[in-house]
Amino acid sequence: MTVDGKRVQARVLQEFCGKAFRAAGLGGAEADLVSRNLMEAELRGIGSHGVMRLSTYLRKMKDGGFNRTPNVRILRERAGMALIDGDDGLGAVVGEKAMKLCIEKARDAGIAAVSVRNVNHYGYAAFYGKMALAEGMIGITCCNTPAKMAVYGGAENLLGTNPLCIAVPATEPYIFDGATSVVARGKIMYYSIAGLPIPSHWACDAAGRPTTDAKVALKGVQLPFGEYKGSGIAIAVEILSAALSGARFSYAANELFSDYEKPQGLGFFFAALDVSAFAEPDAFRAGMDQLLSRLRSSKRAEGHDEILMPGELEARSERENLRDGVALPPDLVKDLTSVAAEYGLSEDPAAW
Amino acid sequence: MTVDGKRVQARVLQEFCGKAFRAAGLGGAEADLVSRNLMEAELRGIGSHGVMRLSTYLRKMKDGGFNRTPNVRILRERAGMALIDGDDGLGAVVGEKAMKLCIEKARDAGIAAVSVRNVNHYGYAAFYGKMALAEGMIGITCCNTPAKMAVYGGAENLLGTNPLCIAVPATEPYIFDGATSVVARGKIMYYSIAGLPIPSHWACDAAGRPTTDAKVALKGVQLPFGEYKGSGIAIAVEILSAALSGARFSYAANELFSDYEKPQGLGFFFAALDVSAFAEPDAFRAGMDQLLSRLRSSKRAEGHDEILMPGELEARSERENLRDGVALPPDLVKDLTSVAAEYGLSEDPAAW
Repeated sequence: MTVDGKRVQARVLQEFCGKAFRAAGLGGAEADLVSRNLMEAELRGIGSHGVMRLSTYLRKMKDGGFNRTPNVRILRERAGMALIDGDDGLGAVVGEKAMKLCIEKARDAGIAAVSVRNVNHYGYAAFYGKMALAEGMIGITCCNTPAKMAVYGGAENLLGTNPLCIAVPATEPYIFDGATSVVARGKIMYYSIAGLPIPSHWACDAAGRPTTDAKVALKGVQLPFGEYKGSGIAIAVEILSAALSGARFSYAANELFSDYEKPQGLGFFFAALDVSAFAEPDAFRAGMDQLLSRLRSSKRAEGHDEILMPGELEARSERENLRDGVALPPDLVKDLTSVAAEYGLSEDPAAW
Repeated sequence: MTVDGKRVQARVLQEFCGKAFRAAGLGGAEADLVSRNLMEAELRGIGSHGVMRLSTYLRKMKDGGFNRTPNVRILRERAGMALIDGDDGLGAVVGEKAMKLCIEKARDAGIAAVSVRNVNHYGYAAFYGKMALAEGMIGITCCNTPAKMAVYGGAENLLGTNPLCIAVPATEPYIFDGATSVVARGKIMYYSIAGLPIPSHWACDAAGRPTTDAKVALKGVQLPFGEYKGSGIAIAVEILSAALSGARFSYAANELFSDYEKPQGLGFFFAALDVSAFAEPDAFRAGMDQLLSRLRSSKRAEGHDEILMPGELEARSERENLRDGVALPPDLVKDLTSVAAEYGLSEDPAAW
């Protein structure tokens, strides 16, 4: 999906977000961090987790769903693990602390896992996977989200679209990052607006019948990717994120884009593997490059012009958006303009 | 798929395998272990990883592909990890040692990972996941296998069907255990023999065109489950199993059911998370039971009579097969009769 709209340099947008968060009472370091989280998603072409979330985050802070000054505490700890209470803080604020701790522990133990409860959504998952990459580590993270998806065989929203990220160092890193639904909800919304039929394995209607009508799908339930296998992975994400940490399950979690006064009560899972514990980092990188390159050069199936590795498309977007600026659709510019007015910022997004 | 054939008690079959392995020169403890590995798969209804592998394992030992007396060495070690050289031993022999070490380390560190190279296929993956369950831990394991599957968008066998297992303690444990292909190769063979068409997302022909002809599919390439997402998971399995350990990649690994004189050169990955480090085990179990029970009781989609959790079908098979005996198809009985003759065993499978 190509987004039409004016292009704005990432730096300008990120500063704007930072000022808005500060004006809304978030501490400077936290404001910068959350802005970077939104901006990196935007750069990587994941607009659904980008600047369009700014106004929601601000409202959540104002109405009480997001705790501006959480007391993030370690409840349990061993050489390779920690359990953290996020005290209803912003997901990125708590998540970044948790992944940092996970990386520190992995440097000694070789691998570590950190489990987090009482938190709000953490934005795009690869943000934390990339933190591990920067330290020469494999990063794995997942979180649960409010229920928007059925279990395999079901017709009821009981699971979140529960994203999973696995990031592995390589010259062009492998970064798997996706919801465990067949497609993102935004994609079904796009088909609905465009009046296009959707493939029948994306969703079913409220009565549990497969549908190719995007409008019907939006009122029904999304389906997990890969039939019962993907459903099993989505359940594993629920377990690692929520059962392990003691967070609310997806079907009991509060919404992000409504329930403004309520903390979401979600759970996160982070793991880091220090590659240098297992292998000589140069040899590992050479192996990764060989594997990914061999897969990219595969003989292609009908209808496929190229074979992309996980994260490759996002890396392309990032290069392009860093060079040309991020495209902001008109509705988003309006939304940011309202933010500027509400928080008394001198910037005028309409004039960018 | 129901298997017709005579039913034999598990104990009888397991003893038979043990005697055959001993007669073929495997040590007693190893013979018992590998027999149990085959038998547990058989009991859980995974015949493809059961007693039908006995004659192949014996031939691999005879021809040199399997090292009967491997020097299994720890090459690298930290509090939460180890790298092991399997010295071309039988997969179950090396895998069981590796998972034991992983569990020991997880008991102290909270989480541990063990990576293994220079090994042969380890049988059904849940064997190792269940070892973690027995210690109140979450067990995760995966391995690569000789290339039989395309990457998403490809039409060339570059990835193994790379199985992944995640096992989590609960009253009825969650045990996800599956290949990362849409279906097992055996299922396509079954459709081929039955003359039935296969869904077009299971495989493509050798030229990379989707096919519904099972016979054509068997000469082509299998496809990963869940389109590009499942493909990404299959690549992650390849990375964790082979890139991390320094094993051969799937496209360079030797076959199990041919290449009898060659070690396969595969890699394994094991991880264990000690639940008691993160939570009170009873509270965790109660949470798991609540989650799985809520998912099972979901409103059902059209065409689904019940909603099964990962591992539930296998647990049912196990109960039934323990009670009634394991069904052995006539060809398998013939195969075992040949084994008895070749290794001078007094048992006569035809008379069971």
